[in-house]
Amino acid sequence: MSEFSNYLEAKLDELVTANRILGKENVCDAFGHVSIRHPGRNDRYFLSRSRAPERIEVDDLMEFALDGDPIDQKGRTPYAERFIHGAIYARRPDVQSVVHNHSMNVIPFGVTQTPIKPLLHMCASMGCDVPVWDSRDKFGDTDLLVRSMEMGYDLADALGDKRAVLMRGHGCTVVAKSLRLAIFASVYLEMNAEIQLKSHSLSGDNITFLSAGEIEQIIGSQTSFIIERAWERWARRAERSYDPEPNQVDFD
Amino acid sequence: MSEFSNYLEAKLDELVTANRILGKENVCDAFGHVSIRHPGRNDRYFLSRSRAPERIEVDDLMEFALDGDPIDQKGRTPYAERFIHGAIYARRPDVQSVVHNHSMNVIPFGVTQTPIKPLLHMCASMGCDVPVWDSRDKFGDTDLLVRSMEMGYDLADALGDKRAVLMRGHGCTVVAKSLRLAIFASVYLEMNAEIQLKSHSLSGDNITFLSAGEIEQIIGSQTSFIIERAWERWARRAERSYDPEPNQVDFD
Amino acid sequence: MSEFSNYLEAKLDELVTANRILGKENVCDAFGHVSIRHPGRNDRYFLSRSRAPERIEVDDLMEFALDGDPIDQKGRTPYAERFIHGAIYARRPDVQSVVHNHSMNVIPFGVTQTPIKPLLHMCASMGCDVPVWDSRDKFGDTDLLVRSMEMGYDLADALGDKRAVLMRGHGCTVVAKSLRLAIFASVYLEMNAEIQLKSHSLSGDNITFLSAGEIEQIIGSQTSFIIERAWERWARRAERSYDPEPNQVDFD
Amino acid sequence: MSEFSNYLEAKLDELVTANRILGKENVCDAFGHVSIRHPGRNDRYFLSRSRAPERIEVDDLMEFALDGDPIDQKGRTPYAERFIHGAIYARRPDVQSVVHNHSMNVIPFGVTQTPIKPLLHMCASMGCDVPVWDSRDKFGDTDLLVRSMEMGYDLADALGDKRAVLMRGHGCTVVAKSLRLAIFASVYLEMNAEIQLKSHSLSGDNITFLSAGEIEQIIGSQTSFIIERAWERWARRAERSYDPEPNQVDFD
Repeated sequence: MSEFSNYLEAKLDELVTANRILGKENVCDAFGHVSIRHPGRNDRYFLSRSRAPERIEVDDLMEFALDGDPIDQKGRTPYAERFIHGAIYARRPDVQSVVHNHSMNVIPFGVTQTPIKPLLHMCASMGCDVPVWDSRDKFGDTDLLVRSMEMGYDLADALGDKRAVLMRGHGCTVVAKSLRLAIFASVYLEMNAEIQLKSHSLSGDNITFLSAGEIEQIIGSQTSFIIERAWERWARRAERSYDPEPNQVDFD
Repeated sequence: MSEFSNYLEAKLDELVTANRILGKENVCDAFGHVSIRHPGRNDRYFLSRSRAPERIEVDDLMEFALDGDPIDQKGRTPYAERFIHGAIYARRPDVQSVVHNHSMNVIPFGVTQTPIKPLLHMCASMGCDVPVWDSRDKFGDTDLLVRSMEMGYDLADALGDKRAVLMRGHGCTVVAKSLRLAIFASVYLEMNAEIQLKSHSLSGDNITFLSAGEIEQIIGSQTSFIIERAWERWARRAERSYDPEPNQVDFD
Repeated sequence: MSEFSNYLEAKLDELVTANRILGKENVCDAFGHVSIRHPGRNDRYFLSRSRAPERIEVDDLMEFALDGDPIDQKGRTPYAERFIHGAIYARRPDVQSVVHNHSMNVIPFGVTQTPIKPLLHMCASMGCDVPVWDSRDKFGDTDLLVRSMEMGYDLADALGDKRAVLMRGHGCTVVAKSLRLAIFASVYLEMNAEIQLKSHSLSGDNITFLSAGEIEQIIGSQTSFIIERAWERWARRAERSYDPEPNQVDFD
Repeated sequence: MSEFSNYLEAKLDELVTANRILGKENVCDAFGHVSIRHPGRNDRYFLSRSRAPERIEVDDLMEFALDGDPIDQKGRTPYAERFIHGAIYARRPDVQSVVHNHSMNVIPFGVTQTPIKPLLHMCASMGCDVPVWDSRDKFGDTDLLVRSMEMGYDLADALGDKRAVLMRGHGCTVVAKSLRLAIFASVYLEMNAEIQLKSHSLSGDNITFLSAGEIEQIIGSQTSFIIERAWERWARRAERSYDPEPNQVDFD
């Protein structure tokens, strides 16, 4: 097996672990999903077949073209909302991983006028501003699911160059330059939401949030070492082995 | 064994799993219950003897006439509130399963003037409006339990053609065209309640709920495949095997 | 062994289970305790040595005179607050079991002016009114612990003929005619507190509580069968065997 | 092996248990740390290498000079924020253990104007006043981490002679004369925060807190026996053996 095959295998194993973590850490219940861009082809991504993240095995992982067509379907049913992933990979060359979830404490910030903003250093990975996308604005009454590339592009436009976007009445989507960072940012977005709800109950909007300068400093100094520290714990809690992030190798 | 006997056996096994799920997912504690209409006779239903849902075995399941009389009691004590089930099956031919529970976050919406309304797409299965039934209106000071067909019918009248009804100071009752959908709607009714409480803490009643059109679209597009995805996860969390929903067969 | 010895042994085993349940169901953490009156002597009670409820074994159980003196200490350290139990057994001949705990959601109702009142039928076992005792009123600045019969009697006076009393900045004490009912009432007092906090967040004090007549009806119709249904579940969750409540026998 | 070596070994084993407890009791997630002063040298302390507390083994424990230099690094990466520990040991000769954590319910009191104050007797170990330190006051926009002795001393100045200090947008630091008391105070600081948030939701700032006299009495009467009762439970929940606190021996 080539070096790249080994690398790809390690990345898919990592993607299974990521799914299990999302289930264990209450970011996803039966719904929500996480993808990685194909490490050898910018026009492909990997995402599970439609299944609860905590049940996913490596054989559930499917390869997709950016438009959402499966490369080798083998009878598996894909997620209806895979277009979230493809549209963002198309618009954001810097993004290597996308998480879509309905984590409970984030939802209130999508259905009220209170913006979610980072107030804890661990949560700066969400960035300064988290826009809110409302499917109703452009598409009217739908089942709220991102069922086409057209809707995916509209969501990607709302995301812009940010790290996360809330989806009204639906959930959120978090993007990152690596899978482990996307998981990290998703867990801590949920934690920030819970703490912001509690802080709001003490003093309304009169909360000291992180400053833009602090957010920049935190993101700048958050090394992969810090992400690994969390990943080790999460992987073990999800009853997966802990493996350091695979070293990237080139496809040739 | 006839094809129908096999089907019935699979349905009763499914009902055991449904009970365990209600316990595991914090919809029921020691109290609350779930029934299915007899798949071969519209005038009968199956419901456990009086026991905590998470302890129920197949031998606990009893068959009842719609008036609440057990068919073959074998010394087992039925739930005092089985009349909820019989009265709803009598009034609602479309209903194949009924869940009654006291899940914690739903209770506040029965004892205040704030109506519960769906704000998350996963929770549209509760329908647009959830009426509140107060046993005191017609029956005065009681122990709040639905101890007769008369009370059952009064509750069924309050339910009308809806998917759920709150019971003041008591809990709620959720109905559906299938067992798995009744469990699904019960879990997500509780989740909507929790998220609505949190949203209310941010901005009072100034919340963007799902529109009627969105609710209709979501219910229309929620295939059994989606319900299966949740059921697989819940069954495994409750330490039950996962079996796809049995294919209906006719009784002859 | 006499019939009474067997009965007493079963009661002490039940008291171990009660302790484990308090730990498992988050009524007690390392602190809080539960006693039973000696089933053969009104002037004695059984209570564990000073240990976290979820760790207690049968050899930890000690016999006390009502004034708190241990009958056969065997080097074991008693709870500093055993006087809560003795004083209540002295003042309340109807009481056979006492639980003292610091369960989290009950505390706010002891340190604010909002009275806790039953709003869910399962929680009527707390009674119509739950008085609040403040050690500071009579004893000034102390460590808040009930360290003497004098303090115990003052607490018992505040309790009066009620089923529970809150203790400001400290916790609560729940009494009942049986051990299983005392555990039941303690678990559901905590649940009522949590639901009342949530209901209050929706509409302040504008909550529909149970009426006095409803509370009376619920208490009147709550058979031991209902308590057993909860006890079976709790015992198994606490990894204890489930045994029906022992039939009382006379001491001779 | 000398008596002191045995003692030191027991203390390091206790430090591993302390780490596991912080993880199990939700005081720390992947982040936060706990140290002890070297029991034989006031100018040294022990702290794990940079790892999630619930994963820590005895070989992860490193010895540091007060300025944060590792004595025998063996390739291990230290926590970036070890300066919190060294600066406090330098300024506070009475302190034998330091916990730094981000426990969830404490954070709101660092980002709003509502001071955290003890309202439950179990929580008096936090002391009358808990100051809030804001890194921005002196150091401007940083990543909020205490990355130098200068920042550590500034935090230690804010702590003064108190038992805990909140850190705006970051967490808190708790100090004590023993490891077990530092863990105890950290767990109950988090519990006080949760109860204070709930009490505040009932009646704003109109809460009866413990009086200064009560706090003094509670701290004065809180024997090591009480701490042991909690420690036994926590150690077993964290799947560690329970060992009584080692008797101090002198280094010679």
